[in-house]
Amino acid sequence: MGNITIKDVAKESGVSTASISRVLNESGYVSNETKARVLAAVKKLNYQPNAIARSLKQDKTNTIGVVVPDIANPYFMKIAKAIEDTVSNSGYNLIFCSFDEDSEKERELLTVMYEKRVDAIVLATSGESEDIVASAGIPIVLLDRKMEIESQQLDYVIEDNIQAAYGLTKTLLEQGHRQIGVVNGSLKVSTGWERYEGYKQAMQEYRLKEDLQFAYQGNFAQQDGCLAVDYFLSLDKKPTAILSFNNTMSFGVILELRRRGYNIPEDMVVASYGEVEAAQLLDNPQIIYVKQEPYEMGLKVGKIIMHRLQKRKKIIQETFIPQIHLYGSR
Amino acid sequence: MGNITIKDVAKESGVSTASISRVLNESGYVSNETKARVLAAVKKLNYQPNAIARSLKQDKTNTIGVVVPDIANPYFMKIAKAIEDTVSNSGYNLIFCSFDEDSEKERELLTVMYEKRVDAIVLATSGESEDIVASAGIPIVLLDRKMEIESQQLDYVIEDNIQAAYGLTKTLLEQGHRQIGVVNGSLKVSTGWERYEGYKQAMQEYRLKEDLQFAYQGNFAQQDGCLAVDYFLSLDKKPTAILSFNNTMSFGVILELRRRGYNIPEDMVVASYGEVEAAQLLDNPQIIYVKQEPYEMGLKVGKIIMHRLQKRKKIIQETFIPQIHLYGSR
Repeated sequence: MGNITIKDVAKESGVSTASISRVLNESGYVSNETKARVLAAVKKLNYQPNAIARSLKQDKTNTIGVVVPDIANPYFMKIAKAIEDTVSNSGYNLIFCSFDEDSEKERELLTVMYEKRVDAIVLATSGESEDIVASAGIPIVLLDRKMEIESQQLDYVIEDNIQAAYGLTKTLLEQGHRQIGVVNGSLKVSTGWERYEGYKQAMQEYRLKEDLQFAYQGNFAQQDGCLAVDYFLSLDKKPTAILSFNNTMSFGVILELRRRGYNIPEDMVVASYGEVEAAQLLDNPQIIYVKQEPYEMGLKVGKIIMHRLQKRKKIIQETFIPQIHLYGSR
Repeated sequence: MGNITIKDVAKESGVSTASISRVLNESGYVSNETKARVLAAVKKLNYQPNAIARSLKQDKTNTIGVVVPDIANPYFMKIAKAIEDTVSNSGYNLIFCSFDEDSEKERELLTVMYEKRVDAIVLATSGESEDIVASAGIPIVLLDRKMEIESQQLDYVIEDNIQAAYGLTKTLLEQGHRQIGVVNGSLKVSTGWERYEGYKQAMQEYRLKEDLQFAYQGNFAQQDGCLAVDYFLSLDKKPTAILSFNNTMSFGVILELRRRGYNIPEDMVVASYGEVEAAQLLDNPQIIYVKQEPYEMGLKVGKIIMHRLQKRKKIIQETFIPQIHLYGSR
């Protein structure tokens, strides 16, 4: 009987755990009817809210800020869903901002989040806001993208981009491709330069030099993928494969190839860092891709935040190693 | 020379208009170097910030809350982009919350937004938060979905859902379809019941009755579209066309049909309320769809917010009439 949890109260009352937290912490709006149902269930089950959970509430606003470069990217939204699934049990809500890969705007939005007194921030950085992050005064967990700050260590959950991009490139080389068109994200962002670095390492292993004519400089947006295809197909010597370094650019690549009547992989092989769900619509598909694990990454981020809000001090830095999925082998 | 605007200052200084606003209003973070560049440009051009813009800043937090049911839906994100393009010139930033079509969570998130002291809210409601909306104390603009409140009129920007869904259904009837599988959104939400109403009106015109066996009750999510296909294909008498009442459910319908090897439109005709960009990947595609205008709707919402923040009193209610796009005629 001592192990009654908030989930039992939720089951008994038919009210969400987040609302129950609000009732028990007397914070935020809950309708009178819901309140009555929660209190009846608490009484019936003789539920004792746990002391750690209660101590978290002092001086807290129960909100976590999520600052990302592209709020429409399903990768970030799957991560956010997992964070929410982890923290909502403790009564936290997420608020989001999107800086569209604009570093000046990222700086502004971090300040907005501080002004809104969020309890913690999850940040996928453009890589140019070290000073603002260093002066935060609240926990910041870096997501997907690294940042170096001299004075302090930060929690992060990232991927081994070099390793995964190396593997993806090597897959193309093993298939015999020597003219590989690369669609880069911003090289100022850790995921951008690390993925390009992985590509260069694989090329070196095959004693091939990076060919700058085959590198298109994008910025992680769908439109960059479309423009990269425009560019590659305008070359006299066209690539036989396109290697795109994030999911939204890859979607642009695939869309533009299809608009021009190219079949994938017969007419052009496509390799993507990140899954493109819509690629399942292709006839006899397939693209080669690095399978990311956004939901699992988000669960980890959520746990780190809860750990931090409980004032624990140990820094947690987690690196996921995504796997290559081999579709489209010929 | 009297017509120098903030955009001229942006051009001269190479700094975004949002940051210039922050400098001039002494609100939020701007680096010293940026500040110096802005002030030099202001001096050089003899720029006089406009009085209305300055009056807006008193007691303001320069943030607008956007509360939507599904932050990953490109429809809402295109609207948000347009709102941002409209209000960022005046120094406003957007913060987002997503309630996943859960009305209790919508109520919580509206309260979070009030606590964060946003200056105005844009809300795509689940339809069950009238009391919270009525007590807001700040401007609320309804987006996409209506809500009736006895005591007050609200600004809104919506679509004529009945008219558009009627047209979409009639297109299928004119093509000879009599067994039409309908994928509904929640009938508690205005867009859900209005679209179903449009379908029923077209059926009545053809002296056909709604067949409840052919109505699948979803809730606007991709997964609902997949499950609807599961259901329709399990029937002895299968539909010849599937009519799906939002873009994300339609994407689920198309994905699931392709996974099962169905060609569209040869094996199954698909009609969608809302555009599915990925449908361009289909071989010899096509789906019939209601073309929404999210960007234009967002521009309108942005203008209404600015109007409201300037304390103007006139209520603005705008209804867009989306057009039917006829792909897949046979």
